[in-house]
Amino acid sequence: MNLQALIEDIRQQVLPFYDRGQVADYIPALASVPPHQFGFAIHTLDGQEYGCGEADVPFSIQSISKAFMLALTLQADGEALWRHVGKEPSGNPFNSLVQLEYEHGIPRNPFINAGALAVTDRAISHFGDSHLQLLAWLRNEAGNPGLAADEAIAASEREHGDRNAALAHFMKSYGNLDHPVETVLDHYFHNCSIAMSCRELARAGLFLANHGASPQTGRQYLTRSQAKQVNAVMLTCGTYDAAGEFAYRVGLPVKSGVGGGLLAVIPGKMSIAVWSPQLDARGNSVLGLEALDRFTTRTGLSIF
Amino acid sequence: MNLQALIEDIRQQVLPFYDRGQVADYIPALASVPPHQFGFAIHTLDGQEYGCGEADVPFSIQSISKAFMLALTLQADGEALWRHVGKEPSGNPFNSLVQLEYEHGIPRNPFINAGALAVTDRAISHFGDSHLQLLAWLRNEAGNPGLAADEAIAASEREHGDRNAALAHFMKSYGNLDHPVETVLDHYFHNCSIAMSCRELARAGLFLANHGASPQTGRQYLTRSQAKQVNAVMLTCGTYDAAGEFAYRVGLPVKSGVGGGLLAVIPGKMSIAVWSPQLDARGNSVLGLEALDRFTTRTGLSIF
Amino acid sequence: MNLQALIEDIRQQVLPFYDRGQVADYIPALASVPPHQFGFAIHTLDGQEYGCGEADVPFSIQSISKAFMLALTLQADGEALWRHVGKEPSGNPFNSLVQLEYEHGIPRNPFINAGALAVTDRAISHFGDSHLQLLAWLRNEAGNPGLAADEAIAASEREHGDRNAALAHFMKSYGNLDHPVETVLDHYFHNCSIAMSCRELARAGLFLANHGASPQTGRQYLTRSQAKQVNAVMLTCGTYDAAGEFAYRVGLPVKSGVGGGLLAVIPGKMSIAVWSPQLDARGNSVLGLEALDRFTTRTGLSIF
Amino acid sequence: MNLQALIEDIRQQVLPFYDRGQVADYIPALASVPPHQFGFAIHTLDGQEYGCGEADVPFSIQSISKAFMLALTLQADGEALWRHVGKEPSGNPFNSLVQLEYEHGIPRNPFINAGALAVTDRAISHFGDSHLQLLAWLRNEAGNPGLAADEAIAASEREHGDRNAALAHFMKSYGNLDHPVETVLDHYFHNCSIAMSCRELARAGLFLANHGASPQTGRQYLTRSQAKQVNAVMLTCGTYDAAGEFAYRVGLPVKSGVGGGLLAVIPGKMSIAVWSPQLDARGNSVLGLEALDRFTTRTGLSIF
Repeated sequence: MNLQALIEDIRQQVLPFYDRGQVADYIPALASVPPHQFGFAIHTLDGQEYGCGEADVPFSIQSISKAFMLALTLQADGEALWRHVGKEPSGNPFNSLVQLEYEHGIPRNPFINAGALAVTDRAISHFGDSHLQLLAWLRNEAGNPGLAADEAIAASEREHGDRNAALAHFMKSYGNLDHPVETVLDHYFHNCSIAMSCRELARAGLFLANHGASPQTGRQYLTRSQAKQVNAVMLTCGTYDAAGEFAYRVGLPVKSGVGGGLLAVIPGKMSIAVWSPQLDARGNSVLGLEALDRFTTRTGLSIF
Repeated sequence: MNLQALIEDIRQQVLPFYDRGQVADYIPALASVPPHQFGFAIHTLDGQEYGCGEADVPFSIQSISKAFMLALTLQADGEALWRHVGKEPSGNPFNSLVQLEYEHGIPRNPFINAGALAVTDRAISHFGDSHLQLLAWLRNEAGNPGLAADEAIAASEREHGDRNAALAHFMKSYGNLDHPVETVLDHYFHNCSIAMSCRELARAGLFLANHGASPQTGRQYLTRSQAKQVNAVMLTCGTYDAAGEFAYRVGLPVKSGVGGGLLAVIPGKMSIAVWSPQLDARGNSVLGLEALDRFTTRTGLSIF
Repeated sequence: MNLQALIEDIRQQVLPFYDRGQVADYIPALASVPPHQFGFAIHTLDGQEYGCGEADVPFSIQSISKAFMLALTLQADGEALWRHVGKEPSGNPFNSLVQLEYEHGIPRNPFINAGALAVTDRAISHFGDSHLQLLAWLRNEAGNPGLAADEAIAASEREHGDRNAALAHFMKSYGNLDHPVETVLDHYFHNCSIAMSCRELARAGLFLANHGASPQTGRQYLTRSQAKQVNAVMLTCGTYDAAGEFAYRVGLPVKSGVGGGLLAVIPGKMSIAVWSPQLDARGNSVLGLEALDRFTTRTGLSIF
Repeated sequence: MNLQALIEDIRQQVLPFYDRGQVADYIPALASVPPHQFGFAIHTLDGQEYGCGEADVPFSIQSISKAFMLALTLQADGEALWRHVGKEPSGNPFNSLVQLEYEHGIPRNPFINAGALAVTDRAISHFGDSHLQLLAWLRNEAGNPGLAADEAIAASEREHGDRNAALAHFMKSYGNLDHPVETVLDHYFHNCSIAMSCRELARAGLFLANHGASPQTGRQYLTRSQAKQVNAVMLTCGTYDAAGEFAYRVGLPVKSGVGGGLLAVIPGKMSIAVWSPQLDARGNSVLGLEALDRFTTRTGLSIF
């Protein structure tokens, strides 16, 4: 199969889906992203790289950073991490407080906002500046030493961050945050505002397709078992309250972000990054989902 | 790898977990099952069969029947089925009414009780006697023309079935049941009380590992895409509110039942059935989960 | 103060509120009631009676029956009743199942549907035919031996009664109903479909304004303390999820019904019945609330 | 009736209830209050004052301050206040976030914590330093120019105030707070930590029994209608999730605080303050409820 031709063909198929969704508008810095953009990049374990459309345009990775933070922290914290956060799908929007109250301050999983804050808190315990730690890893794996948080976006997130502040204070009231709310939020917002292109994202995520080891740098980031675990959490919790829909249509571990990016993993084969800023009602990229659906259907590649 | 030796070894490893859980006791007919039993059976796509322990002792498949009913009904109803039931993980106990109210009578997925009732209602529309239809399929695939519902259990389920009656009436109040509540419940309780052994169950589930086609009878029950879909729903919703835990530890599509049975699928390779009647707090077999965890860890077989 | 002139004047003030609400349409028998009707009746402890508009037109008392059933059952059951039903305001719609699940089958109060079913179940334990018992009381106090349930409405309620059946089965699953679901529903639907006029209703409710004793028949239905208790439950729970609004604007114990009726009590002084079939979004009579608001504001009569 | 003898007798009756509850322990400053204290004070509209036990010992009024803040703010804001907060009973614990999310940041009523924060925010808009405004009023009405917040308690509240911070940030995320979270919390914590004795509290609350006018200072704080409204909100929402229980047993508008104080109002007659620090599971003073229950039962004074 000619993957380059395939993804270009898929791009043509999904472009008509422009304007079926809306660019995230909860902060001005995201709302101003030109909506008609679509990038697709693949990196295979044997070193092949494919890309089309805006595959080299950097975008705000937002919640995709949570997958990397989970890997980073799981590596350091091991199973102890799960005393602070669960690993069950949520069934509620990513920033809901309801479940957090019923579950006494232990977030349902690492990919809802509260869970990501809890993971960040653990990361701070291990690394101090957890944001710099994440950045160093991504720069190394993506092969771009210039990767950085977009400070305008981070500032905008903070300015409109009352709901995340509520989540953090609420967890702290249950004793489930060790560090000051302000610090945790600061790292969290900076992680979310890291800008990467599809091509960089596919490279950085390749270790998840390779049982925890980076084929590029040779580093073993996670054990084989941990890599399986992160992929499992991505599949069951990675796309907000559409995890069932993604599993059903795409059949791959996927982590999405409200910047419009999606990182998908085919264990043993390749990593895939797609990006298009317009989101559906559940916060996932409209064209991204359509593209991944077509890709797995046409290639027959799926974990199921 | 010698699978027969492996499963016998795993059996020895998990027997010490006896009495860490409790046999389902909501109906007398289940409560009286001798607790210290453990069966394990594997059927591979190339026709090999392995079994150990009580692999040939029939047990009540209970909610595992929901996976077969989903396949049966999806085949007949196609995508229209999803107007009556969702496909997102629930995060709530399998018999909760809360979510059903918030979601206006459309159950979250086909594997919570309300969802299975909705699927049964659709099956009745297509097949009339949906229970007989299911039984015919299972007899054929399991190679046992004597398979049948345990009438004592079915009667006991009905006698203690007020919560399921509540779910059914509630859905009917939203217009999401076409057939009388009594009929739907009758089929549902009979499906749940079908008795099968691990060996039979592994055989009957083999089509899910083979892209929808039975290697035994040659029948194509589901399209390749539908088989992927059923597996996806099993992974995200198949083990009550422990789907995340199963994905994390086992990494396979699994459907469990309160009879203590588990059906797991390794796409492209094999089907696995495990049974042990003692359940953990979330309704899944204690020894069953331990056995599957060890099996995937030691073989490295997982979809992730 | 000339009460007759006052209520006629209030009637003129509230007639412009016609068509700001909608007649209950969940059953055809209620939906067909001519919407532009308004009745107002007062009965004082010293035997004066005032009425205007359609004060003599019978209507379906619906949930107002729950206040009488509570009195009837409290008289027989005493404090033991509160093991089966709570007495806290609900904050949820009257037919919600959510709270019932969180509270393990004990309804929040006697005036949500689940609570009224629990009270009916207790009444059956004491009286056998609880509907006839209620009817006998109302006939006696209203001075109309012809009072009866409207069988067409009772049948229509039953036909569309899946949600109430769900509530009853759900409570039964928790062991909080002693009698068969069918029996409890039958009594409940018949109680709701009793037809009374405002004038009859005001008479029948007079004992609540008179510390439990009927000034008409001399019967002491409730102790002084129990009468206070029923009034308290009416104030905090009597108007669905608008109890706070009624307390704030009207300041009296009130029980409403989706037939458009309202029974209000001024302890030590009088009982008031208002009726107009068009309901607001929370199920209370639009003109009824406006009339009671004006009545208490202009007379200065309020319990606060 | 000899009220002085009565309250002394009631005191003897309720002292055996010591140690059936627990002193609030969420902050050290409250946890250290000697538990075996009971004060009872009455102030009648005709100027009589009665007291017994520790009626002159100051305690932390905590949430009782919310009743005064509501009066203060309703006076300034009028009906516009209700755009920011509802007036329906909650049915949930006073510091729950669940309802706040379902109701999009508009707290259910002014007496749950979120509602009191919203009222404080409005008070700041009108008065600037809303705490000083409240203090001036209380000093004037209580006849004690030395009334003040206990700074140790205010500091302790703040230090353990993550849940209130969560509520405030959450409301701010919905645009339902105009002032900085820090400011609102600061005023709120200071209001809660005001120390008053039963005798002072009964005096300060007398205007609620007198249709909004203080018999002592002659000031008309609220219109007759507003006084009725505040009393109504106290009755339906004033005692956390025990409002139904209080209405049923006591039958008066009551506002409670976790310091163990209770302020009750008998419109047209008197105000009552009771205090005893040990609380029941719902946060109300054990001896306080027992005393008020006995008082209304023995005097026959109740609004019902």
